[in-house]
Amino acid sequence: MLALRVEKKRLALKNVVKPDQPDEALVRVLLSGICNTDLEIARGYAGFNGTIGHEFVGLVEDSSDRNLVGRRVVGEINAGCGKCDLCRAGDSRHCPSRTVLGIVGRDGAHAEFLQLPAVNLLPVPDTIVDEHAVFTEPLAAACGILERAKISNSDRVAVIGDGKLGLLCAQVVALSGTSVVLIGKHASKLRIAERRGIETVRPREAAKRKREFDVVVEASGSASGFDLALDLLRPRGQLVLKSTFHGTTELDAARIVVDEISIVGSRCGRFSPALDLLQKNAIDVDSLISEEYPLANAVHGMHRAATRGVLKVLLRP
Amino acid sequence: MLALRVEKKRLALKNVVKPDQPDEALVRVLLSGICNTDLEIARGYAGFNGTIGHEFVGLVEDSSDRNLVGRRVVGEINAGCGKCDLCRAGDSRHCPSRTVLGIVGRDGAHAEFLQLPAVNLLPVPDTIVDEHAVFTEPLAAACGILERAKISNSDRVAVIGDGKLGLLCAQVVALSGTSVVLIGKHASKLRIAERRGIETVRPREAAKRKREFDVVVEASGSASGFDLALDLLRPRGQLVLKSTFHGTTELDAARIVVDEISIVGSRCGRFSPALDLLQKNAIDVDSLISEEYPLANAVHGMHRAATRGVLKVLLRP
Repeated sequence: MLALRVEKKRLALKNVVKPDQPDEALVRVLLSGICNTDLEIARGYAGFNGTIGHEFVGLVEDSSDRNLVGRRVVGEINAGCGKCDLCRAGDSRHCPSRTVLGIVGRDGAHAEFLQLPAVNLLPVPDTIVDEHAVFTEPLAAACGILERAKISNSDRVAVIGDGKLGLLCAQVVALSGTSVVLIGKHASKLRIAERRGIETVRPREAAKRKREFDVVVEASGSASGFDLALDLLRPRGQLVLKSTFHGTTELDAARIVVDEISIVGSRCGRFSPALDLLQKNAIDVDSLISEEYPLANAVHGMHRAATRGVLKVLLRP
Repeated sequence: MLALRVEKKRLALKNVVKPDQPDEALVRVLLSGICNTDLEIARGYAGFNGTIGHEFVGLVEDSSDRNLVGRRVVGEINAGCGKCDLCRAGDSRHCPSRTVLGIVGRDGAHAEFLQLPAVNLLPVPDTIVDEHAVFTEPLAAACGILERAKISNSDRVAVIGDGKLGLLCAQVVALSGTSVVLIGKHASKLRIAERRGIETVRPREAAKRKREFDVVVEASGSASGFDLALDLLRPRGQLVLKSTFHGTTELDAARIVVDEISIVGSRCGRFSPALDLLQKNAIDVDSLISEEYPLANAVHGMHRAATRGVLKVLLRP
């Protein structure tokens, strides 16, 4: 089968054998989405070698859970050991021996087929089309903010970054009724948020609003976003770090101590709140889709996804 | 009067005029303590020019609050505007236009006299000797951890750094009944904690205890402490940043996101819990006193305070 692979930091479309672990469900991928993490992995992030991709919607072709066979599903990307305290408490997202779809020790979704444990799969309601369902994973990650940060309705929230993740985060926070400002550089992207009634502002203008925000979500994935976030936060404010990127950034730790800032890392969220939002059509994901390519053109799709101004690129096997 | 000044990053003992702001209390300093922040300021931290020092016990010689005159006092170091929302809520520690004793826009405590607003001063109970009372400010800072981090009795806490601040932090956390491990390099300093029943360990040994701790307090003021802290924390653990130091440190933001770590800055604490602890003799501060010098030898005292193995150096005007 076709699969988009990273091997020793080299990206290539390969013909590989179809996966056949008998203890896992086999999913025929209908559509997969390219995430910035995929681009980071291709640059060396996480040291991953294998098939990349972790955003997908697919059809279950085989599973020990017979109820799943033939169902359209999305899948939680962390596959835990099932035995540790965290897994037994029903949250394998931090299982120390977990594999992660297309990121850690497990081939991913930019392929004709993938495998995941049956417990990771959630059936997709019929009313959610594939082009929306494929956003379940990144939308869950955006919802994860609310799981990690304490945000009250009276808080003033800023989201830095008008990329896919920033646009999802801003919409999720706005839905909760909290005042949110999206900070970004691209008029066309900012308009997506504006259509949802979200205030938008350019970074240069935002920089004047020092200490105005209770919560800042850093979703730009750049060091400059980190500095701007610290400028915008009131003393004792919360900075939510959302994006993973390869490499380090300079941190002036004294600023965090003197202003008693809290920095909260946030990675994966639960899938069911995201599916709920998609079913209610509460989030504009259509506007986030820039381009779609056949899986056979996946390498081109990755180049396009890395191009300034391009939002979500989908791959169809 | 004599005062220990930093001017353009040069440290010198000077003869200066006695302060005489009529709207502030005048305090004759009985004893002051050299903090690592003083050493950092002498290296350029905070860009401060003026008399340094913010840990003191003194006698009120003059005040509009006549009840204070003649009383032995300690003083909260943040002097707020008195008008902003924060000040009116009774917490000037983050007033945006505050001055800070010996740190921001206000001459400090390594002098024969200092001035502070009368509201900043707290009388010291007679049972607390000067040599203990002078620890009120750093002990309050250690108590501040409990104000900022969520620590439950079942948590495993590590404190990195066996300096003055680390030894106070470890004792404060241990007093709350929580299991705490102090990580440091100096046998003689670690023994101070051991005498209080606190487990101690060297950094090399500590590094083997990966992901074992729910809360790590970074009180070493070094970048290596920051890296060790991230190694020791379990996923979703809390890193409390306690020490301010000049310069930046490299941060691998992805680690914070992937493990969903919370980083919490903690600076000043309330004075009254610290005075309570000192009155109960609940904290060993005697063992933290390394040396005492007359204020006239303050420059030598600063050199000694910067010497490996030396803990608190006191200055007596």
